[in-house]
Amino acid sequence: MGIIGKSEIRKDVRLKVTGQAIFVDDLSFPNMLLIKVVRSHSPHALIRSIDPSLAENVKGIVAVLTYKDIPGANVVPVVLMDQPLLAEREVKYVGEPIALIAGEDREAVEEASRKIRIEYNELEPLLDPLMAMKKESPKIYGKDNIFSHHKIRRGNIEKGFERCDLIIEHRYTTSYQEHAYLEPQGMIAVPYEDRMLIYGSMQCPFYVQNAVSHVLGLPYGQVEVIQTTTGGAFGGKEDVPSLVASQAALVAFRTKRPAKLIYSREEDIESMSKRHPAVIDYKSGVTKDGYLNAVEVEYLLNAGAYSTLSPVVLWRGTVHAVGPYKCPNVKVDSYALATNTVPCGAFRGFGMPQVTFAIESQMDELAHKLRIDPIEFRLRNILRKGDRTVSGHLIKGNMELERTLREAARIGWKGEKRGSNGYKKKGVGVACNYYGVGLGAEGRHLAKAGAWVNVLLDGSVNFAVGTTEMGQGMETVLSQILADELGVKYERVSMIPTDTTRVPDSGPTVASRATVMSGNALIEASRPIKRSIRGVAAKMLKSPRAQVKLKDGYALAGAKRIDIDDVIGECFKEKKLMSSQGWYKAPHTSWNKTTGQGKPYFVYSTGTNIAEVEVDMFTGEVMVKKIIAVHDVGRVINPQTATGQVEGGALQAVGYALFEDMISWRGKILNTNFSTYIIPTSEDTPQIASVFVEDPYPEGPFGAKGLGEQPLIGVAPAITNAIFDATGIRIRDLPATPEKIIAELNSHR
Amino acid sequence: MGIIGKSEIRKDVRLKVTGQAIFVDDLSFPNMLLIKVVRSHSPHALIRSIDPSLAENVKGIVAVLTYKDIPGANVVPVVLMDQPLLAEREVKYVGEPIALIAGEDREAVEEASRKIRIEYNELEPLLDPLMAMKKESPKIYGKDNIFSHHKIRRGNIEKGFERCDLIIEHRYTTSYQEHAYLEPQGMIAVPYEDRMLIYGSMQCPFYVQNAVSHVLGLPYGQVEVIQTTTGGAFGGKEDVPSLVASQAALVAFRTKRPAKLIYSREEDIESMSKRHPAVIDYKSGVTKDGYLNAVEVEYLLNAGAYSTLSPVVLWRGTVHAVGPYKCPNVKVDSYALATNTVPCGAFRGFGMPQVTFAIESQMDELAHKLRIDPIEFRLRNILRKGDRTVSGHLIKGNMELERTLREAARIGWKGEKRGSNGYKKKGVGVACNYYGVGLGAEGRHLAKAGAWVNVLLDGSVNFAVGTTEMGQGMETVLSQILADELGVKYERVSMIPTDTTRVPDSGPTVASRATVMSGNALIEASRPIKRSIRGVAAKMLKSPRAQVKLKDGYALAGAKRIDIDDVIGECFKEKKLMSSQGWYKAPHTSWNKTTGQGKPYFVYSTGTNIAEVEVDMFTGEVMVKKIIAVHDVGRVINPQTATGQVEGGALQAVGYALFEDMISWRGKILNTNFSTYIIPTSEDTPQIASVFVEDPYPEGPFGAKGLGEQPLIGVAPAITNAIFDATGIRIRDLPATPEKIIAELNSHR
Repeated sequence: MGIIGKSEIRKDVRLKVTGQAIFVDDLSFPNMLLIKVVRSHSPHALIRSIDPSLAENVKGIVAVLTYKDIPGANVVPVVLMDQPLLAEREVKYVGEPIALIAGEDREAVEEASRKIRIEYNELEPLLDPLMAMKKESPKIYGKDNIFSHHKIRRGNIEKGFERCDLIIEHRYTTSYQEHAYLEPQGMIAVPYEDRMLIYGSMQCPFYVQNAVSHVLGLPYGQVEVIQTTTGGAFGGKEDVPSLVASQAALVAFRTKRPAKLIYSREEDIESMSKRHPAVIDYKSGVTKDGYLNAVEVEYLLNAGAYSTLSPVVLWRGTVHAVGPYKCPNVKVDSYALATNTVPCGAFRGFGMPQVTFAIESQMDELAHKLRIDPIEFRLRNILRKGDRTVSGHLIKGNMELERTLREAARIGWKGEKRGSNGYKKKGVGVACNYYGVGLGAEGRHLAKAGAWVNVLLDGSVNFAVGTTEMGQGMETVLSQILADELGVKYERVSMIPTDTTRVPDSGPTVASRATVMSGNALIEASRPIKRSIRGVAAKMLKSPRAQVKLKDGYALAGAKRIDIDDVIGECFKEKKLMSSQGWYKAPHTSWNKTTGQGKPYFVYSTGTNIAEVEVDMFTGEVMVKKIIAVHDVGRVINPQTATGQVEGGALQAVGYALFEDMISWRGKILNTNFSTYIIPTSEDTPQIASVFVEDPYPEGPFGAKGLGEQPLIGVAPAITNAIFDATGIRIRDLPATPEKIIAELNSHR
Repeated sequence: MGIIGKSEIRKDVRLKVTGQAIFVDDLSFPNMLLIKVVRSHSPHALIRSIDPSLAENVKGIVAVLTYKDIPGANVVPVVLMDQPLLAEREVKYVGEPIALIAGEDREAVEEASRKIRIEYNELEPLLDPLMAMKKESPKIYGKDNIFSHHKIRRGNIEKGFERCDLIIEHRYTTSYQEHAYLEPQGMIAVPYEDRMLIYGSMQCPFYVQNAVSHVLGLPYGQVEVIQTTTGGAFGGKEDVPSLVASQAALVAFRTKRPAKLIYSREEDIESMSKRHPAVIDYKSGVTKDGYLNAVEVEYLLNAGAYSTLSPVVLWRGTVHAVGPYKCPNVKVDSYALATNTVPCGAFRGFGMPQVTFAIESQMDELAHKLRIDPIEFRLRNILRKGDRTVSGHLIKGNMELERTLREAARIGWKGEKRGSNGYKKKGVGVACNYYGVGLGAEGRHLAKAGAWVNVLLDGSVNFAVGTTEMGQGMETVLSQILADELGVKYERVSMIPTDTTRVPDSGPTVASRATVMSGNALIEASRPIKRSIRGVAAKMLKSPRAQVKLKDGYALAGAKRIDIDDVIGECFKEKKLMSSQGWYKAPHTSWNKTTGQGKPYFVYSTGTNIAEVEVDMFTGEVMVKKIIAVHDVGRVINPQTATGQVEGGALQAVGYALFEDMISWRGKILNTNFSTYIIPTSEDTPQIASVFVEDPYPEGPFGAKGLGEQPLIGVAPAITNAIFDATGIRIRDLPATPEKIIAELNSHR
């Protein structure tokens, strides 16, 4: 009985269900100020003047701060350093922060926020990314409004299309998606002696440390960032907390008092990052026997007013633009474009749900045109061991896409799923995807992680890592890895909440990288400790060290065994090293910016989703009945948390596919809470059959690859393909709202 | 220009002089309770009943807790585990804790503490250690009231005395000494999710972790102890904070609220540990040419009601009982005895000031009887390289006592210091001492230390150690060691406040061990980081790695140099390991309990003090005019902090020698504040000439040994020897108050 592969109870579950978990808004400090952010009401304007005097006179107001009060750099550092913490002379989107009001209570800051006087000269806003591409459009970033451009050049695209028997070409568009984390953004900054302590809800404490340190002009060594229990993130707490923390830190620095900033839901939805809306033009050509021969893609992201993580979101989408398929002739051009809208950023899938919707719709259309079964058509084209991706990456193994496809088809492709049920029509759709685990070549400088393991005198074990628990189950999975590695019981292991002063900068907690990166660093950290324990156990068991095994709370040699706590006690008597740090660097990756060729990721997870839907032909409503989600993520450490990831990802994708429709007017988002921005509820939850095809990845901890984002990526096209299967209607614009379906049905009647 | 040996500005000075330093009483947490300890008014009684009802009914009172509320073990774990956290059926000293009252404010807990009803059956107290030794005395510990007994047997004591030409025999007694730290004891316990966080003033966070974990029955991994800025300790915050923290933790655990406990000065003096009063019988014999041939010692410590650290305090005194002298025939018996008085414990010098007073008085008497100059007499007997201590420890080097003696004599022995000035008589006295650095053989399981070093992207450097800054300058000295080792500027290095979850258990911060132990661990931690930096610098400088030096913020190779921050930036790009943990174990020590022979310490610091006094023959008042303090502590890392240690230690010893006279009646201390317990002020401060004889210790960081305790140890006998020199009066009972001097003068008239 090992610990790996067992559904141990989540480490965070007891605290969360009993209400003992401390979220940032549960924390307070004596003498703490509350902060309100004053934001732009205009999508594009010059600031003529800011008059804080009336606001300052409100009783209980301690400070009204603008960019002039920033002691360091007025920047939120991400990739391009183009975003100010507080606007100086220009505002570029509705919701852009202009001033910070700090006061003794909520009423005071609310009143003062209404009394601050800001005068603008309105400018014409640039709202559409297609407009932003045009030569004649006004420029709000650089000379061309392009934050970033990536490309892939493989084979010869013109000749490739010449040899095709069938070519189709379509435009696919997708909308915003809101992260809808349970807990909105929040931070507390506490001046403590000569350091600035930051507590808050976040994915990436080291990003926050970097930002606060830039904004305050403090050395990194004087900024400590401590993650509080974090109520969901989904990428929405990757870069954005840097902004929130810097706002709180600026107030704390200037007032020398603790300062708390919690965003309201409306403020959060209006001004925080979301999934990028995309416009994707696809042209695909196949031979008549069903082999992809040429694909040409133009992929545009509406990045919003500042670049944030758009260059890397765009890059991931670019790399995966042709899906998990072989294709000898490929041309991809992708652009992240500046507009006067809310900056978009990281979101589970990171640029891939958009392209996956497009390519998998395209694959379905090709299959139908060729009259080849969509499963069969994919089987002819998918990547297998020995193939090269469209980036020229030779797959040497750990690519079990075929097994996921065959397994999904076996469970859910044939049978009674199609046909009509009165005015309701049923259909089934399939979509495949692959997912480069980790940051890949464009983030390779961050592809490292530290871990610290400390075995204590009573046999309890603490560990610290630089990645974060945000509800995804990392703490649980890492505790299992460490417990198994050390041979102690799972119950004895506990994680110290992540902060920046316990392990070296371990990069962000994104890109499904926590298990592989921190897991490997933990295994590395355990080595010298295991040496100590095994050496002492060998003496106690009077057995050769090589025969000693550590397992489930015992040291064993042949038939002899002793309690590992006794061995640990003896290790302490002998002053053995019982604490150690581990350091893990990801395997090599590479990327040629001119050709888009290289080894962009070190390994890929893969998956196939089959969706079964029922379309109400009168209302246009789509009910997803079942999702069969078969994933190849290497070894599964904890089946229950893995299944949780799949169920959550699939449901989030149901929302993306069908409901989540963000409405804006002149750059202002109108549906800023969950009464108007509709996310799936339990009512909308299909049966989700989650299956794992296990194929241990030798470089991963106990064979694990990474899972976090993958469950969401391929679900939307499986649903829209099922809608086509049921109704013959092809949805090329997400979400597939009833209005769009009715309109399409009407146009076909 | 290196950093070692330079008087860099203390790291803690800016925060302390500007008032920004946060002491435990400056900290508060929302919803925090205040605690008052209900204590025994009787030195010895059975508790008949405790009635908390009236106390509980006081408005604002949240809990009244007794031993019944302790979820774990009712013990304050130190050496013998004999002390309860809260008395159960018996109280053994005035001030013993019985109950804890927790309430919303100070007034409520004060009122409730007056309303709790405790009924006693009084028992006869045992107050005198000489009584405690007697067979017929009542027993309050074990069968014989002896907490601990140590001995040394060397040569043949009877034959040794037979061959002596002169034998003297005297009893020496010493009184309590109060630590008189600026900041009294204080702790805050904060329940945080499933952990208990302890903030407070302390020397030894790992002791506190152990204690809280025992008392609450929690795994070590769920107790985190964080040291706040600590306003002095001197040994008084070695074991005692375990008690204070456990009291606060019990309240926090039971009420699920943060709980603060700050002792008042009176409570602190009444109930906290102090230097043990001692009764020391010395018999010494010399040959007529001035060589010690036999010494017999019986050394009794009044340990008080519980053993605390008495067994190890006693052991250190035992090892050093004959002073830094050769002697072929030695018999030492020492006893720590239980009485119904306040438990005594660790105090700078740890059992050595008592025996050093005795042996150095004895040496002076012998010299005078032999008509040999006291300096000359000592020169004939002191330990040098190649000699063996009375424990048989062969000194292979790093024993520069002779140089300290000759240097002190050169500065201050001859000249106009003797004679009369009207009714004031002047005299000069000398005393030598040696000091085993670190915990020694009786604490060898704790003789280990960890350190963590983290170099950050901007070139700032954080480090964490398990030992503590308590005003002695450790943070400064360790920052210098680390800066020099890494070649970065001193200003870039900062220490993260010590807590138990950053490095492995590194033992206590006592026994002048912080510099050697944590310094060596830091050097160890720096190695892999230096490798990273030098490797990258070699590439950047296009020089062989072996030629690259890191110094003062530069990487240098021959005439070429680059800013080390640039090298560090490049290291980050290459994902080099820039953070590491170090682990240091002290060299081997040994001790035979039957013979007192072995290698009790791995190295010794040594020193000579010469005191110049003026005695007012009418009032008996002694003014110490000058102290010449020459110390051999290996290499001096920071001359200014080292001098600070010497000045502070010398002045604390002036108090010990002359003023600090604790008065008790039936076990109750009567002078519980500084209006009645007199410590030296600036008025009483002599000129202190601090000189260091440097002799680098190869095992120490940059050659350092250890300094903290040594400056206090040998000063009192130098003063009393000077009083003899001035007046012919031999003081054998400390402190040498005017009353005692007048009485002696009268008895000689």
